[in-house]
Amino acid sequence: MDFALVAASEAGQADEVPVGAVVVFRGKVIVTVRNRMRELNDATAHAEMLAIAAAMKIVGSGRLSECDLYVTLEPCTMCAGAIAHARFRRVCFGAEDKKAGAVENGVQFFAHPSCHHHPEIISGIGAQKSQELLRDFFSARR
Amino acid sequence: MDFALVAASEAGQADEVPVGAVVVFRGKVIVTVRNRMRELNDATAHAEMLAIAAAMKIVGSGRLSECDLYVTLEPCTMCAGAIAHARFRRVCFGAEDKKAGAVENGVQFFAHPSCHHHPEIISGIGAQKSQELLRDFFSARR
Repeated sequence: MDFALVAASEAGQADEVPVGAVVVFRGKVIVTVRNRMRELNDATAHAEMLAIAAAMKIVGSGRLSECDLYVTLEPCTMCAGAIAHARFRRVCFGAEDKKAGAVENGVQFFAHPSCHHHPEIISGIGAQKSQELLRDFFSARR
Repeated sequence: MDFALVAASEAGQADEVPVGAVVVFRGKVIVTVRNRMRELNDATAHAEMLAIAAAMKIVGSGRLSECDLYVTLEPCTMCAGAIAHARFRRVCFGAEDKKAGAVENGVQFFAHPSCHHHPEIISGIGAQKSQELLRDFFSARR
């Protein structure tokens, strides 16, 4: 999660919402990415989506069942859906997102009967640092 | 929707789950794509996701608020989330997806309080042809 927090900080410096993500495959970090919505002019270019696409290329499979995802902010509905499609083994996230989150908030997708893959979920890791990055970013823009 | 159904049929011929999508911008078709999950070895390469990425490039904006999406099958949770992020004006889909759909089934995302964009939804257009394509595809694989 430390790597993901560094990536989130770099996102903030690049005027992106500070969210970072890391994928670990068989004990090794294979992807470290940050939110690139502004850079790519793409409202779907969340750190998790970029991490999933990169990891699938590296692993050479559309199924990441030996991978764990670390992300600094609770995944949204889109990303939760993508995480289920990708069959991650485990998802660790930092700060919760009461407005747009979809794991412990919102549609709580992994607990919903329409979700057909259930990764292990660990929340709160690095939450304080993640929240600080987000708060500083949004307060600087007001 | 006719174009989307042709794309869906082409997906089936390419051994992909037959789903097709079209984006219309200011009255013109700007994107016609099909599911490419198998070809790209990417479980997130649904027709809608590819359509959204392509449309954002063509329109030159991360917001597709002057665009309408036509897709032959009810969007899943991931795609519904992406559609909301992209701010589509209207979503027309064909067959409903009782197992993985997230518009009229599943998490019914656009009606959920955590969804902050509400496109106009039109369902059932071309549903019979879409269902036929899906049924033929899956029955041939059994």
